[in-house]
Amino acid sequence: MTSPAHFWAVIPAGGAGTRLWPLSRAGAPKFLHDLTGSGRSLLQATVDRLAPLAEDRVVVVTGVAHLPAVSRQLPAVSGEHLLAEPTPRDSMAAIGLAAALLERQDPDAVMGSFAADHVIPDGDAFAACVRDAIAAAEAGWLVTLGITPSYPATGFGYIHVGDAMEDVPAFHVKEFVEKPSAPVAADYVASGAYRWNAGMFVVRPTVLLDLLAERDPGFAADLRAIAAGGEEAMARLWPTLPKIALDHAVAEPAAAAGRVAVVPGAFDWEDVGDFASLGELLDPDASGSVTVLGDEALVHAVSSSGLVIPGAGRLVAVLGLDDVIVVDTEDALLVASRDHAQDVKTVVNALKSNGRTDLV
Amino acid sequence: MTSPAHFWAVIPAGGAGTRLWPLSRAGAPKFLHDLTGSGRSLLQATVDRLAPLAEDRVVVVTGVAHLPAVSRQLPAVSGEHLLAEPTPRDSMAAIGLAAALLERQDPDAVMGSFAADHVIPDGDAFAACVRDAIAAAEAGWLVTLGITPSYPATGFGYIHVGDAMEDVPAFHVKEFVEKPSAPVAADYVASGAYRWNAGMFVVRPTVLLDLLAERDPGFAADLRAIAAGGEEAMARLWPTLPKIALDHAVAEPAAAAGRVAVVPGAFDWEDVGDFASLGELLDPDASGSVTVLGDEALVHAVSSSGLVIPGAGRLVAVLGLDDVIVVDTEDALLVASRDHAQDVKTVVNALKSNGRTDLV
Repeated sequence: MTSPAHFWAVIPAGGAGTRLWPLSRAGAPKFLHDLTGSGRSLLQATVDRLAPLAEDRVVVVTGVAHLPAVSRQLPAVSGEHLLAEPTPRDSMAAIGLAAALLERQDPDAVMGSFAADHVIPDGDAFAACVRDAIAAAEAGWLVTLGITPSYPATGFGYIHVGDAMEDVPAFHVKEFVEKPSAPVAADYVASGAYRWNAGMFVVRPTVLLDLLAERDPGFAADLRAIAAGGEEAMARLWPTLPKIALDHAVAEPAAAAGRVAVVPGAFDWEDVGDFASLGELLDPDASGSVTVLGDEALVHAVSSSGLVIPGAGRLVAVLGLDDVIVVDTEDALLVASRDHAQDVKTVVNALKSNGRTDLV
Repeated sequence: MTSPAHFWAVIPAGGAGTRLWPLSRAGAPKFLHDLTGSGRSLLQATVDRLAPLAEDRVVVVTGVAHLPAVSRQLPAVSGEHLLAEPTPRDSMAAIGLAAALLERQDPDAVMGSFAADHVIPDGDAFAACVRDAIAAAEAGWLVTLGITPSYPATGFGYIHVGDAMEDVPAFHVKEFVEKPSAPVAADYVASGAYRWNAGMFVVRPTVLLDLLAERDPGFAADLRAIAAGGEEAMARLWPTLPKIALDHAVAEPAAAAGRVAVVPGAFDWEDVGDFASLGELLDPDASGSVTVLGDEALVHAVSSSGLVIPGAGRLVAVLGLDDVIVVDTEDALLVASRDHAQDVKTVVNALKSNGRTDLV
């Protein structure tokens, strides 16, 4: 299959990944790390996954602080394809900026926005899904990808799927729903009518900006002004943009108005939110032994299970601990039980409170 | 109280402390470390404890490899008071060498031999016990100190205590017994007639060497020849000496012959054999939180208990783990459950097998 000639991949590369501390830091967030042992960072793997569709039409939006690292990891993404956010202003501003630039650059563009820190092992299934989404986007829809739930997750939002469309290979979206309680999530999964919202959107740039303009005309106008005005406009307008997620600014109201489509995707997907989910990703069959991300020769485990990341070149010996997480870095060490993986952020918050911002 | 003018403290400073890896290493064994947070190493604390009795009459016997470190920690112990074993030949040779030298130096000497890596918090109770032992030793007995058991330990040998002596403040020793099984240990403790054998002996040097000569005249003669002959004799004879513990070479046969006395000691005593016993030593009341040996500012513990030794200057975060042991050093990290503290030596053995002798 050839790539859709006007398809652009937009990759917002942001977010600290606080629950993956001390691997992930404010200065080296999770998308810069190889969390799968593939030899490629999550950001690089995201670009690799999109290459069959977008070829070199890849735009990365990231914080100014991460430009050098992103350039090192993605030497082919440069110039106007590498966009710097002077300050973080959430996903609507980041993705909207890319939309406004693409709208000027390629009137026939269809853009797909995919986070830089997700893991999707089956690239072919993903690409097939995106191709359907492109077809629906070309017909003017705001299209989201809806992941088939593999368990009743309470950590993701869901997409309520409606009827199949007639002209395009997609379904109507009835609504986006917030992270549910456990019983509600179980009902969602049992019904078969809900998909996980992975925050992946495919849309014409103009459609996206026009949908935004319906809710917040000034926001859309400012984004288009920045795209037209270059650095001066960026410096003047960026700091004034609303801090809001694309889901809230555009997707949810558009769905309520019946203007969003969803393409169901049955591929495995992980947002690797914490070390527990990273452990499951690396050892899906729960082997009962220790999984090593990194140099296995550095880890000596006896009567133990869990995840060990030997990131400082030192030997790590683990003895008689089940479901343990050990993350060794040059200046900080985390030892945790898998059950407390979510609480890693409390450590990060405590370090900030204690003035140890050098470590977060 | 004044110090007994002819009392000499002999401190054999040997043993790797394998179960305290990675804190204790072949090149930096346990006696060189401050394991109590007192600011003094176990070796220094041993000398401090003996100072009220021995003043500057302290002899340390250690491996040649450890001479520089011992000299740094004990600048006052030098010259003929700091004895180097060219190779390790067990405790009879080490303590016997000191005895042979003291026999020549001070005909009225009484020596007390105390390991460099034991912890005894109550120095006054210890000193009172040693004073009684000195009185018995002056009367010609081989005297051992018998620690009142605080629990039915299976990791120590025991001393079977007989009748009180009439002339000296000590008891006859019926026999030394090896490490018992748990039910036997319980019987010992319940009987009240057994004490822990902590390997502490007080004796006239000549009595010790003459007892040795009864069993192995060549061994005793060689030790006396080394003391008389200096470096040449040491180089020639030391490598030929039997590798045997003082208990087996002298104490057990002498006890069988009714020639050993014991002074009961009710003071707390710890040989700090592994991280579990170190944890108990540092947190005797089992506070249920994390005990830190070292800089507490480096440890951030949440919902955890156990022992953390932050020895590499890095932050150590511990999350949701009970009874955990974390020992952080520059080149190796140990994370273990307290229940597996004894198995640390298996890690050390595995490292040796894998050629990582740099780490052991």
